[in-house]
Amino acid sequence: MFEAKLTQGSLLKKILDAIKDLVPSANWECSSTGVSVQAMDSSHVSLVSISLSSEGFDPFRCDRNIILGMETASLSKILKCASNDDSITVRAEESTDTVSFIFESPNQERVCDYNMKLLDIDSEHLGIPEQEYDAVIQMPSSEFQRICRDLTQIGDSVKINCTKEGVKFSAHGDLGDGNILLKQSASVDKEEDQVSIELNEPVELTFALRYLNFFTKATPLSAKVTMSLKEDVPLVLDYRIGELGNLK
Amino acid sequence: MFEAKLTQGSLLKKILDAIKDLVPSANWECSSTGVSVQAMDSSHVSLVSISLSSEGFDPFRCDRNIILGMETASLSKILKCASNDDSITVRAEESTDTVSFIFESPNQERVCDYNMKLLDIDSEHLGIPEQEYDAVIQMPSSEFQRICRDLTQIGDSVKINCTKEGVKFSAHGDLGDGNILLKQSASVDKEEDQVSIELNEPVELTFALRYLNFFTKATPLSAKVTMSLKEDVPLVLDYRIGELGNLK
Amino acid sequence: MFEAKLTQGSLLKKILDAIKDLVPSANWECSSTGVSVQAMDSSHVSLVSISLSSEGFDPFRCDRNIILGMETASLSKILKCASNDDSITVRAEESTDTVSFIFESPNQERVCDYNMKLLDIDSEHLGIPEQEYDAVIQMPSSEFQRICRDLTQIGDSVKINCTKEGVKFSAHGDLGDGNILLKQSASVDKEEDQVSIELNEPVELTFALRYLNFFTKATPLSAKVTMSLKEDVPLVLDYRIGELGNLK
Repeated sequence: MFEAKLTQGSLLKKILDAIKDLVPSANWECSSTGVSVQAMDSSHVSLVSISLSSEGFDPFRCDRNIILGMETASLSKILKCASNDDSITVRAEESTDTVSFIFESPNQERVCDYNMKLLDIDSEHLGIPEQEYDAVIQMPSSEFQRICRDLTQIGDSVKINCTKEGVKFSAHGDLGDGNILLKQSASVDKEEDQVSIELNEPVELTFALRYLNFFTKATPLSAKVTMSLKEDVPLVLDYRIGELGNLK
Repeated sequence: MFEAKLTQGSLLKKILDAIKDLVPSANWECSSTGVSVQAMDSSHVSLVSISLSSEGFDPFRCDRNIILGMETASLSKILKCASNDDSITVRAEESTDTVSFIFESPNQERVCDYNMKLLDIDSEHLGIPEQEYDAVIQMPSSEFQRICRDLTQIGDSVKINCTKEGVKFSAHGDLGDGNILLKQSASVDKEEDQVSIELNEPVELTFALRYLNFFTKATPLSAKVTMSLKEDVPLVLDYRIGELGNLK
Repeated sequence: MFEAKLTQGSLLKKILDAIKDLVPSANWECSSTGVSVQAMDSSHVSLVSISLSSEGFDPFRCDRNIILGMETASLSKILKCASNDDSITVRAEESTDTVSFIFESPNQERVCDYNMKLLDIDSEHLGIPEQEYDAVIQMPSSEFQRICRDLTQIGDSVKINCTKEGVKFSAHGDLGDGNILLKQSASVDKEEDQVSIELNEPVELTFALRYLNFFTKATPLSAKVTMSLKEDVPLVLDYRIGELGNLK
């Protein structure tokens, strides 16, 4: 039996909003340490990795490892039925082909339970290898979202150029070109507005804005995003989800 | 001559918003006691009944009974031109084929008058018979709207099961099933958040969500909705419109 | 070299929003006294005239008169990339075919520069002749926008009838007719809510609502609009843009 209750159910709603246009279906792997998801987008260009620690749930019970294969669109539909202040409990028996979601209002006067059919999803276990990056940039997630959206007006791809002075995002297209320079913050009042750069080596890499715009759907999850850059290695974007875990 | 002035003109705007997708045209019957409308939706499945007491208007004058046949879409267009804080006066002569709407701003510096052609609408006079119901449920109208919207994600129809403990709304479809249980409120701080159940006999009835979603467009009219349920009898939803009357 | 910096960059964004559906491309004429635009809409029915004084910019430098031919849609796309609190600097060399836009955040930590290709646009220099009008009406721009939008529900054109007592806007169509009467304000608390009329001679003129609805896109620029009316002469609508200039 697997059972995990998240008091702040809105976090799970936001995670689904972040991945639902990117990942059509995914295996949610539940173990005693928590829940993790690894899934490729439908064109196999990017890997989404979610990891939620058992400590973010209360109670959390996982007698035996269990894999819940779920269609993202269906899961998203069901989570839309939870109010933002509802708690969400996920429950599954080992020998069943359904998973239950229980939404409880704070005053306990409304209880909803939704039962969803599980899927059998083939998947190779992929991971994002731990490694040294040339540059690790921390910046406000809303600023990153905005830059991606603005440069989409200009071109299809963005060149990210990171030096000690700052990060430059550039695009060009039919109507001209655009460059956005973010300087490393000297000192900022609000820590979450800060732009910080850890640099081993200056890098210049180009990415498709189409995908970055998909990833920035995770913006409501976290005030900050961490970008890790290295030549010939995929870009890693890391959004922390409160105390609960992260989405990459 | 018929003339009725509604200081809070926004009420009439909300009534039109509630019925305009359901009722293509209707006869507005004006008598010395007030204004009433009885109309079937275009597929003749449901009956909309509006009753507005003369006491809600000031002044209200109706020398002789008069029937104003109006296209709902046209009436809605004209009422959209009234500001929410305008007063609305409806005026019609006995021997005319137009009705006038006068909108006045609170400071009297803007006066709008709109004249609309009347229609000849055949209609049998239908009524909702007064009768004893198995269960009468009072609940927040926004909660009912939400339940209908949520369960539309799951299936096409909703089963309403009412017992002493509470009301259960259930739907099932391709992706699984969903159940929402509302418990009868013990004591709530805000009276309008309360769920109360008068039960003669437990009932279990099924309704098409398509129609319920049409009816919940009346939600802005009233904080509460009263549902009356009885086997083999149509569901009655009653939204009170302030002191003015109600919409069923 | 031409260079002009506007601290309140959002003004330029609003000007583009106002004209982008009306004027496909335009010559922006820069001289030592400021920037001016004269452009016909694509069906050559109306003339848009923008005039921005050099005093609204700081710094403002224009060594020699220069004409910047720009596609409005492209310019609008680029200005969408400026935050509302960014300053906007426009810069162009005499002998170049591009113009640069530099957006700087208030704390200087984000600097964007966009370079856009210029166009060669044929244009005859048209102007709005200074003349005496029969009636000059000043009214809240939002009220005028609302009247145009409301009467569009009723008909295709609006008759404006101005007398000492007030201004009457009338439309009629298939569903009936509508009349909105604005009285001249006696005394109003908020100056910007005032309706004032300077009248030499009563006028009654009819205009296509389609165009008026285009013009009212300038509403965010100014709380007030001034309408100048005269028989056989086009209507002039004047929106003042703060201290910067105006849009007609």
